[in-house]
Formats: sequence, C-alpha cells, structure tokens
Amino acid sequence: MNKKAVILLSGGLDSTTCLAIAKSKGYHIHALTVNYGQRHKFELLSARNIIDRYQIKNHSILDIDLTQFGGSALTDEINVPKDRSDAEMMDIPATYVPARNTVFLSLALAWAETLSAYDIFIGVNALDYSGYPDCRPEYISAFEKTANLATKAGVSGTNFKIHTPLIDMRKSEIILTGIKLGVDYSLTSSCYDPNKDGTPCGHCDACILRLRGFLEAKIPDPLVY
Amino acid sequence: MNKKAVILLSGGLDSTTCLAIAKSKGYHIHALTVNYGQRHKFELLSARNIIDRYQIKNHSILDIDLTQFGGSALTDEINVPKDRSDAEMMDIPATYVPARNTVFLSLALAWAETLSAYDIFIGVNALDYSGYPDCRPEYISAFEKTANLATKAGVSGTNFKIHTPLIDMRKSEIILTGIKLGVDYSLTSSCYDPNKDGTPCGHCDACILRLRGFLEAKIPDPLVY
Repeated sequence: MNKKAVILLSGGLDSTTCLAIAKSKGYHIHALTVNYGQRHKFELLSARNIIDRYQIKNHSILDIDLTQFGGSALTDEINVPKDRSDAEMMDIPATYVPARNTVFLSLALAWAETLSAYDIFIGVNALDYSGYPDCRPEYISAFEKTANLATKAGVSGTNFKIHTPLIDMRKSEIILTGIKLGVDYSLTSSCYDPNKDGTPCGHCDACILRLRGFLEAKIPDPLVY
Repeated sequence: MNKKAVILLSGGLDSTTCLAIAKSKGYHIHALTVNYGQRHKFELLSARNIIDRYQIKNHSILDIDLTQFGGSALTDEINVPKDRSDAEMMDIPATYVPARNTVFLSLALAWAETLSAYDIFIGVNALDYSGYPDCRPEYISAFEKTANLATKAGVSGTNFKIHTPLIDMRKSEIILTGIKLGVDYSLTSSCYDPNKDGTPCGHCDACILRLRGFLEAKIPDPLVY
C-alpha cells in the first residue's frame, strides 16, 4: 500500500504520535502545519524537527493570521490559565481558539483534494483534553460528512475519511503507543506558554495533561521543565 | 434590531447583493474578504470599494495562500475555461477551488465566534452557477451542523445560522433584488480572468452567467466588456 494521507502536525505530543501511527500503517505522509499566530510558536520548530526525523518530503507550513480575530489566550492578549484543578478543567478554557479545528481540517481537506489524498489524520483526543468541543467524535463525524458534500471528489463518490486514532485514548495510552512506534518525545512540544528558551511552563493545561500522562505511563518525560 | 452578522464578501455580484440583503434586514455588518491568491485579485479592489460605499467599519481582509496547494485555474497555472456551452457548464470546471467555501466558512465562523455574532451570510447560488458542490443547500446545512458542534457557542446552546439568501434565485432575480436595494453593480467584479486594466474577459463562466443574468433582467450591465 502506498496511499497518500494528509496529517495535521502541530509539533505536539498528540499530532506526532498520530503521524507515527499513520506511518506505521504505510501511508505516504503529507504533513500540514498551520502557523496561525499561536503564542507558542516554538511548536513550529518542533514540527520541523519531527519532519526531519521522519524524513518527510512533503511538509506544508501555511500562514494564516488568526490574531486578526483574536478571542483566545493563544492568539490574543489574554493570559493562559495555570494550575487549573480537575473540576476547572471540565470547562472550556481561555486557550480555546474559535473554530480552530474546523479551519485546520478545511485546509487539510483543500490540500488533500489537490493531492488526490482521501485520508486525513488529526490527533484529537476526547478523554485527557481541555474540553474543546472540536475534539469530540460527533464533531469529527459531522465534518467528515460536510467534507464529502463540499468537494468534487466527495460528490464523485470518492469519500474522504477523517482518521482520529487517538480520540478514545488516555494520554498515557497515547504515549505508550508512541513509544512502541519509536516516537522521540524529546522532539515534541506541548506547552501553551513556553519560557523564552522554549522550555515548558509546567503549569498550563497542556503541560499538566502531558506530565500526568507520562506519570501514568511510568515513563519519564524527556522534556526539561 | 442590531444583530451582528459576518458576511463573506468577495467583491462579486452575488456577495455584494447578499451584503445588501443583510443590511436591509438590519444586521450590523462585519465583512470578511479572503485574499487566497486568486488569479482575479482585482475583486479585492471591488470589495474595498463596496465597503467604502456602504461605510462598513468592520472589514477584515485575511491572507491565506492557497496557491501553495494549487489544483485550480484560480490558484494555479491552469487556464480558465472560456465560452463553455450550457452542457459543459453542468460539469465542475477547472475554476473549482478545492474546499474553498469550507475554508471561507470556517474562517467566517472563527471570526463570528470571537464577535459573538451568530449569523453568517454567504452568497452561494445553486441555480445559475458553475456546478460547484459547495454551493448546494445540502452542503450548507451540513456545514451549519458542523459549526454548531465545533464551537463553544454551539455547544452552549447558541446556534450559528448560515444564511444563503441567494441560494434558490436565478442570476436575473439576484440582480433585480440588488437593484431594488440600490446596489451599484458597477462596483462589483465577477470575471475569473480579467484583463490587465481590470475589465472583464466576457468569456469565462462567471462573465457568461453575469451577462446572461443582466440580459434576462432586462437591465444593462454597467461594466465595460
């Protein structure tokens, strides 16, 4: 098999594991990274390092300035929440970026159709996550349906499939899956609000979920906090 | 009423009429124009002139380089089809831009949510059009459903509505509706492949449908061909 797939790669733990899964299934990877004006631009460097490690020839970094819209702690002058309790983490936090995954998936779809690639991978997760609505299975299923009505390929009977291999996994399972596939998590970056030297803050939701995942997996996180 | 609405404004005949309709209904307009690397960049100038005419204070022009993906006569080195027959016009042409309306609507949704605007207007039309799949009612309805699953507002019970006031109109009806609302069609631009001075080619699908619409409406097209 040498089927083409488009993979959304942020440079984080989840999307990198998702890439490793797609690769292990034999897909020919086209990776899409979106530079949307995120506070944690450091992840773009991680994405590039991961692309190098996996020797992926087709990597597209698309610029789209969502800071023009703002409205999120990741794209606006809003503080990233720190040290949220489990109860607080049930609420959608200030780091929610309006319609981000819809924007990302629509861009992945646009590229996929030009490539005649009908498999799109996104590393969303609906268990150990921050309560983002666009990480849930019902959302993904609705987007997939929309994609097949939206496109020339879709109406011609070639269906796009949105793959979400991590959607039902706990963070520790994601890490253990990645470790089995040889993922080097020292290359990945999860923090929403890294220090100037790129080291993670250790207190934002993304850091807390990551650290807890490594703890549960009984594996040390290779990042220095 | 002073409800906010986000309107996708390309600078063409349809989106301008759509804007006039939304304005006539009392919406407070936030217009979004996407500079996606379209061959017919001239339409961006039209969009700006329309914004000036309507004295709209909130106009966002978002850059996103879809030429990176290519795959369309509007974003790649592919010729714009000319003088297509009615039968040929039933087929999706080379000017189809993969997933364009999904990209546009997802950006409109992203902006709308930051504005707490729950009404989004798009001037798609499923009658006198070029067979684009993402102009059909079933597509719009699927996107709307996705939008409400994707967003914090949607899951909190505030529903987004995608308005498509032109979807069932013939081109001549669109023009007559616009004329009643005072639209100055000399400001609009429809051509996919304009001459260097911005005058329309008169032979692409967009020109043919526009000219036929004015003819049926028994109104002269103010543009010089």
